[in-house]
Amino acid sequence: MADTHPGAAPAQVHWNLDPVVEQLRMSREVTHKIRHQGTIRELPSKSALVGILHGLCAVLFPTHYGRAGLTDESIDYFVGDTLNTTLSLLSEQVRRGLVFNAEARGLPGAELGERAVRITREFASQLPSIRALLVSDLQAAYQGDPAATSIAEILLCYPGTVAVIYYRLAHALYLLGSQLVARLISDIAHSDTGIDIHPGAQIGGSFFIDHGTGVVIGQTAVIGQHVRLYQAVTLGARRFPADETGALIKGNARHPIVEDDVVIYAGATILGRITIGRGSTIGGNVWLTRDVPPGSNVSQADARSNCPE
Amino acid sequence: MADTHPGAAPAQVHWNLDPVVEQLRMSREVTHKIRHQGTIRELPSKSALVGILHGLCAVLFPTHYGRAGLTDESIDYFVGDTLNTTLSLLSEQVRRGLVFNAEARGLPGAELGERAVRITREFASQLPSIRALLVSDLQAAYQGDPAATSIAEILLCYPGTVAVIYYRLAHALYLLGSQLVARLISDIAHSDTGIDIHPGAQIGGSFFIDHGTGVVIGQTAVIGQHVRLYQAVTLGARRFPADETGALIKGNARHPIVEDDVVIYAGATILGRITIGRGSTIGGNVWLTRDVPPGSNVSQADARSNCPE
Amino acid sequence: MADTHPGAAPAQVHWNLDPVVEQLRMSREVTHKIRHQGTIRELPSKSALVGILHGLCAVLFPTHYGRAGLTDESIDYFVGDTLNTTLSLLSEQVRRGLVFNAEARGLPGAELGERAVRITREFASQLPSIRALLVSDLQAAYQGDPAATSIAEILLCYPGTVAVIYYRLAHALYLLGSQLVARLISDIAHSDTGIDIHPGAQIGGSFFIDHGTGVVIGQTAVIGQHVRLYQAVTLGARRFPADETGALIKGNARHPIVEDDVVIYAGATILGRITIGRGSTIGGNVWLTRDVPPGSNVSQADARSNCPE
Amino acid sequence: MADTHPGAAPAQVHWNLDPVVEQLRMSREVTHKIRHQGTIRELPSKSALVGILHGLCAVLFPTHYGRAGLTDESIDYFVGDTLNTTLSLLSEQVRRGLVFNAEARGLPGAELGERAVRITREFASQLPSIRALLVSDLQAAYQGDPAATSIAEILLCYPGTVAVIYYRLAHALYLLGSQLVARLISDIAHSDTGIDIHPGAQIGGSFFIDHGTGVVIGQTAVIGQHVRLYQAVTLGARRFPADETGALIKGNARHPIVEDDVVIYAGATILGRITIGRGSTIGGNVWLTRDVPPGSNVSQADARSNCPE
Amino acid sequence: MADTHPGAAPAQVHWNLDPVVEQLRMSREVTHKIRHQGTIRELPSKSALVGILHGLCAVLFPTHYGRAGLTDESIDYFVGDTLNTTLSLLSEQVRRGLVFNAEARGLPGAELGERAVRITREFASQLPSIRALLVSDLQAAYQGDPAATSIAEILLCYPGTVAVIYYRLAHALYLLGSQLVARLISDIAHSDTGIDIHPGAQIGGSFFIDHGTGVVIGQTAVIGQHVRLYQAVTLGARRFPADETGALIKGNARHPIVEDDVVIYAGATILGRITIGRGSTIGGNVWLTRDVPPGSNVSQADARSNCPE
Amino acid sequence: MADTHPGAAPAQVHWNLDPVVEQLRMSREVTHKIRHQGTIRELPSKSALVGILHGLCAVLFPTHYGRAGLTDESIDYFVGDTLNTTLSLLSEQVRRGLVFNAEARGLPGAELGERAVRITREFASQLPSIRALLVSDLQAAYQGDPAATSIAEILLCYPGTVAVIYYRLAHALYLLGSQLVARLISDIAHSDTGIDIHPGAQIGGSFFIDHGTGVVIGQTAVIGQHVRLYQAVTLGARRFPADETGALIKGNARHPIVEDDVVIYAGATILGRITIGRGSTIGGNVWLTRDVPPGSNVSQADARSNCPE
Repeated sequence: MADTHPGAAPAQVHWNLDPVVEQLRMSREVTHKIRHQGTIRELPSKSALVGILHGLCAVLFPTHYGRAGLTDESIDYFVGDTLNTTLSLLSEQVRRGLVFNAEARGLPGAELGERAVRITREFASQLPSIRALLVSDLQAAYQGDPAATSIAEILLCYPGTVAVIYYRLAHALYLLGSQLVARLISDIAHSDTGIDIHPGAQIGGSFFIDHGTGVVIGQTAVIGQHVRLYQAVTLGARRFPADETGALIKGNARHPIVEDDVVIYAGATILGRITIGRGSTIGGNVWLTRDVPPGSNVSQADARSNCPE
Repeated sequence: MADTHPGAAPAQVHWNLDPVVEQLRMSREVTHKIRHQGTIRELPSKSALVGILHGLCAVLFPTHYGRAGLTDESIDYFVGDTLNTTLSLLSEQVRRGLVFNAEARGLPGAELGERAVRITREFASQLPSIRALLVSDLQAAYQGDPAATSIAEILLCYPGTVAVIYYRLAHALYLLGSQLVARLISDIAHSDTGIDIHPGAQIGGSFFIDHGTGVVIGQTAVIGQHVRLYQAVTLGARRFPADETGALIKGNARHPIVEDDVVIYAGATILGRITIGRGSTIGGNVWLTRDVPPGSNVSQADARSNCPE
Repeated sequence: MADTHPGAAPAQVHWNLDPVVEQLRMSREVTHKIRHQGTIRELPSKSALVGILHGLCAVLFPTHYGRAGLTDESIDYFVGDTLNTTLSLLSEQVRRGLVFNAEARGLPGAELGERAVRITREFASQLPSIRALLVSDLQAAYQGDPAATSIAEILLCYPGTVAVIYYRLAHALYLLGSQLVARLISDIAHSDTGIDIHPGAQIGGSFFIDHGTGVVIGQTAVIGQHVRLYQAVTLGARRFPADETGALIKGNARHPIVEDDVVIYAGATILGRITIGRGSTIGGNVWLTRDVPPGSNVSQADARSNCPE
Repeated sequence: MADTHPGAAPAQVHWNLDPVVEQLRMSREVTHKIRHQGTIRELPSKSALVGILHGLCAVLFPTHYGRAGLTDESIDYFVGDTLNTTLSLLSEQVRRGLVFNAEARGLPGAELGERAVRITREFASQLPSIRALLVSDLQAAYQGDPAATSIAEILLCYPGTVAVIYYRLAHALYLLGSQLVARLISDIAHSDTGIDIHPGAQIGGSFFIDHGTGVVIGQTAVIGQHVRLYQAVTLGARRFPADETGALIKGNARHPIVEDDVVIYAGATILGRITIGRGSTIGGNVWLTRDVPPGSNVSQADARSNCPE
Repeated sequence: MADTHPGAAPAQVHWNLDPVVEQLRMSREVTHKIRHQGTIRELPSKSALVGILHGLCAVLFPTHYGRAGLTDESIDYFVGDTLNTTLSLLSEQVRRGLVFNAEARGLPGAELGERAVRITREFASQLPSIRALLVSDLQAAYQGDPAATSIAEILLCYPGTVAVIYYRLAHALYLLGSQLVARLISDIAHSDTGIDIHPGAQIGGSFFIDHGTGVVIGQTAVIGQHVRLYQAVTLGARRFPADETGALIKGNARHPIVEDDVVIYAGATILGRITIGRGSTIGGNVWLTRDVPPGSNVSQADARSNCPE
Repeated sequence: MADTHPGAAPAQVHWNLDPVVEQLRMSREVTHKIRHQGTIRELPSKSALVGILHGLCAVLFPTHYGRAGLTDESIDYFVGDTLNTTLSLLSEQVRRGLVFNAEARGLPGAELGERAVRITREFASQLPSIRALLVSDLQAAYQGDPAATSIAEILLCYPGTVAVIYYRLAHALYLLGSQLVARLISDIAHSDTGIDIHPGAQIGGSFFIDHGTGVVIGQTAVIGQHVRLYQAVTLGARRFPADETGALIKGNARHPIVEDDVVIYAGATILGRITIGRGSTIGGNVWLTRDVPPGSNVSQADARSNCPE
């Protein structure tokens, strides 16, 4: 019988491919169709974006994320060459993503390409100021964690660093009109670090997330300067308003505003368009759905202890 | 001295390999032995399974997870060819995993191979109906998140999508008797997304997990249709009953039942074989260990605020 | 116009590279300088460490993490050869990391190389006893999870296993003076598993973390024998004391002591230099900042339920 | 001194990059300029063509050059999918090569792309008849070499097989107007096998080259059916006519015509537009520059022997 | 039109795949069928053999072809581990090749596997004596070429070295019954070096080929000790005897016998079952088809010179 | 029995590794020892040199051998960055090779490193003048081959181009004292093209080799300007003088001098320290061992024809 020795004669195994291929086609094209207007569109590629992000990190911090063997005489050659190849790759991803923008969808292919080039060129011109913001974040991390021993450690070993770099890059692309690529970047950061920052969120300088796994920052959140978060903090939406058909209403401001100099400890859940006033401290595991005035201290009720005796 | 210039002459370094190799062998074979019955068994390979999962995703959603350049004339060739190679690879992993099934362990090699082929062929035949379930999940995500702008975004950028696709594939293999491979798949999903769904759990259609990091769904959990979860939700077991020797009793139903149309917000911890009644809403950070009737609203006590004045 | 057809003529796109390269150089060297004393130092490489960790896992558990096709006659050749190449690679990473140690920074290159070799050789000699500890951890996992069906499943499918192996390797390097490499290893573990254990923490044998996403264990935490943790448990610091300049004081003991035989359930947050007494059980989502005597049961207050009727 | 320990501190080496880069630019743009009209054109890629050739071989002989594990139910999926991806890649290389065609050079980018697609589609339609010719070649090899034991051996182990397959593919592209890509393919064959067949040559069916290293067949050579060549045979041009400026005249018929059923042994050098009549045999190392009537036997003069006595 | 912008919209190109796939299937299965008895057999893989040859070279000469960083304490671990993995891979290729042996063809799969293991094990046991022969070859090269400066140069830079190593390995497999694998190895050597030695040839120790491109040594050639060849030497067959059907007679002795201490200069063509007597010297470009007594000097007639006057 | 099902249970095969490893060690260390003075030296790596050669070609001809997507604004960044990484890699290979230079062998490791850096830096400074020579070679090829249609075709499709580029690079390294690396480069060129040019040979500008397979140019050959060679031309040594012990005398001038404007046709064998006078033409397959005055025409005697009648 054909299946007897799969190791010795794997060529003989019969999988009934034809009916499965046929049923999958039916599912794709008829019964469970999700393809937009029946056309195949080329999608942005997550693995291409991973390479692009490595390129951008190398451009921003070449001695930490670039290549070994860089010297003062060679570093600008490396930065310029890496920038050139990275921007070309990014431009192609931006072009693919534009097809999913409502207002760009109908444009002819050549115009999409032109627009992608313009977005990418503008993005490139913002890299120096993005670097300035990121340096403020690194210094905030160094000052904010007693365990940190050097800026190098913060660049290499802190998941929050990766999450914030990727967020700042994604946010710039988001504002320039490349939302799908920006979302893919935030998903890559999420997968690498467990930190989920929507690229639409607005975050000021000197921002630090320690540990970070489980942090969620929603699309319309607004965060000031010198804010510090710990793991599992949620800046989320409360229940979503639905329209009369039961569909959720999209796009309205629904996430918190966190003012300057706020610290939010691990596991705090802060929901809705509320404001955490400047200089406040929110304790761990707190559940918070209302405004908090500047300088507040919010903490959870004690746990019930049941000691043996 | 031999060690002086490791850069210039790395060949000269002496590591005292022999005693370390000898002590590790002693540890393996005598003092800290974990090998089953002293025999070396070939284990399923996680990196092979990563490739297999990419293949299966490409088969299910070829325009999103397949290759660039697919067209209406070429897509079925791609699906059929990818399915063929993926099933061959999967069959080998299933065969390796069967050695760890209590009832298959003693079978001769050829019978294990035959059984692996049968499991894999049956699994292939279920792919179209798995796709149907997944499309219901995608639509639930699109309807459940105000920030979602397209089905493409949900397929490409949502960790919950990956977690649910991998879960549905793993669950099918689990039911067909390939438990170890199923568990490996759930671990791959966990590592990629921070979402940990045991492949033994039963989950109905139109299921959506938003953000998702830290979600844990236990082996005997049962989830209905149209359920929505947020990050850090636990559907776990309470304290585990132990037998008279102190060993935990394995396999009994010990995780929650969540009925249709339930929403569970971030950080809720729901433990034990309790039932969350149809249409209930469980608030964030809630700790819940008892039944909840249909239509309930469960929320956490307020945080203690300590405002400055 | 040059940009019209990026697909057809990508070579013509102009990115304005020169001003961006120039401004990035200014940012690096003048306005937002982070380079230590203006010199370029070669940093440890995360991707090299990923390979080294795979090598060490293969050396410790060759039949689970090694290569297919190992036999009783070949296994020691594999272990010895893998150990040799892995130690050479590790030694180079340790050398790079030493430049960031305050007391090693000034040493000449050759002495750094020698010290790296000595650290690596000493580390190698500890591998058999590290393996003994890890086997106790595996057995604790098998006994502690009713869903576990074999030691193989625990080695292959449990993120907690990866986190604990990597922690024990990193901790050994940390004590030998290779702190930056140790931190990189813990970050790799964090990224793979969502579990963040600082390599400075002290953890006794038979340690088990189930699910694990979101677990954080701080630098000065001390954990006894037979301790079991679930996902999202934090053993962290409370507010950090700052000196008169407002800078946080670094290095003092500020994380909990967890004695033998303690179980801590999902989401518990335990902060500060407190002691959880032997044999205690800490419930899920608990917030705890004070000592707990041996044998305690600590659990959260009930959620407020709002049932319909 | 900076260069003292390249192993230990490779980052410090100074190469004087700036003047070398500057002088190379001068050489490129001023003193030794070879760029056509000062514009950068994207060239066909040899490594891409290597992949394309593997794809085409797999399509023509899937069980010999395709993937392991093909079965009767899966082989057409494999052929169709490989064909699709290979043609897309080929089309891009053809497009790049067209820029070097005198008459296509001035076309706008979009028209070049259209023409490349038409050439590629026409090429694809010829693949079945190319396969028929190649099967006649394989049978000629099996009949012509007493050492051959199977058609599989001829497909896998004979450099002449590779050279003839690549020639027939290149010749088809050459006739369709993709000369530069055709020449690249012949160079790949040359590098792999030591056999150099210009894609412009015309070669009938049942053609066999044994051993083959050093065989050269020129651009305007014409070879009939059932011809057999051995290693180091040259079918070349004699001295080249030059015009009054001393430049060689390009493109005229200047290589031999070899009629049906001719055998040419190792090292024979046949030059100029001469005709080797049907059924002739040309001996090894022969030097031949004049017509040979049908049925001739041409052989070299004896070597002078100087035996000891 | 769909084809207008292949760069911008490559997904839309239509290749007419279906008729090409259909015609290729017809060609494969009906009109130009070459498949043996209609079954698909798994063929040995050339790329797998390339890896196997690298492994065997590393086992034979670990400090030249093995890995950097080998030391006296680690070299045997490397050799043993490389040997183990290489033999496993070789055994699989031998198994696949056995299906093409006339007498093994009918055996059940398991017996083919057993036989492949026996052949591979016996082959392994011959490696030390193969190494001894190869060392004699290296010494002959060092003594035979005035340009050679070290044994290392001969191992790394001489194509003749690769050709002779691969020949000796292939010859051992050929004698053990693995002819197809042996032929594949000789083809790999041919492609790398331009030297074509049939694995059936018998060659004594201290053999040296200088430069080597174009050397052909036929299946039944017999070469003694201390023989030296230069590039483009052919030890071939004369015209092949055909049977009454016109088919060539296979397998009879038809290539030269070269006795000990013979030197054959570049381009000599020696054909037929003739004997070159011990100690003879054959000049460059000589054509030789008759026996030569021991101690002969054979050279070509002078070229005709046409000097200007 | 253990070997029965290699496919199903490959882990069980026993190869008798221990005695083979033991005998190979005996062969290496006692019976067939080739290791220099018993020490393990790190050898230059051929695969590293392949990468280095690609880097150097990209630096010399960036639009032909560099990366796609180069533009006028980016090309110098690419050249500078590629030069920097390539020189670092080359320097390491040069250092390894120096250990094999008689006069460098005894130097301490740090001095070898310094010398390698100096050689590499000097080599870099010669790249612009090497490019000038190569451009003269390209122009000679374009003028010398009626089939050539563009400089791009000559750069991409002519094996002679690769051979001459690699020769000119190797020759520069040879003169700077890096002989072993130079020889490795010539072997790489030989393997790719079938053209074997010893790096010690001296070759003037405007040099062209057409087809080229089988060309051999010896260590002490001297070639003038505007020389053209065809395939299988040998510029070799005659019999080698031996000293009284029978060992060949190494290093003396023993290969031909070819003056300016000479053409040598396919298969000519020219041996010994003879001079081919300026402007001569040497016919195909000629055997030549004596001086030829300027302006000579040398051709082979006619083949003996045996026409049927």
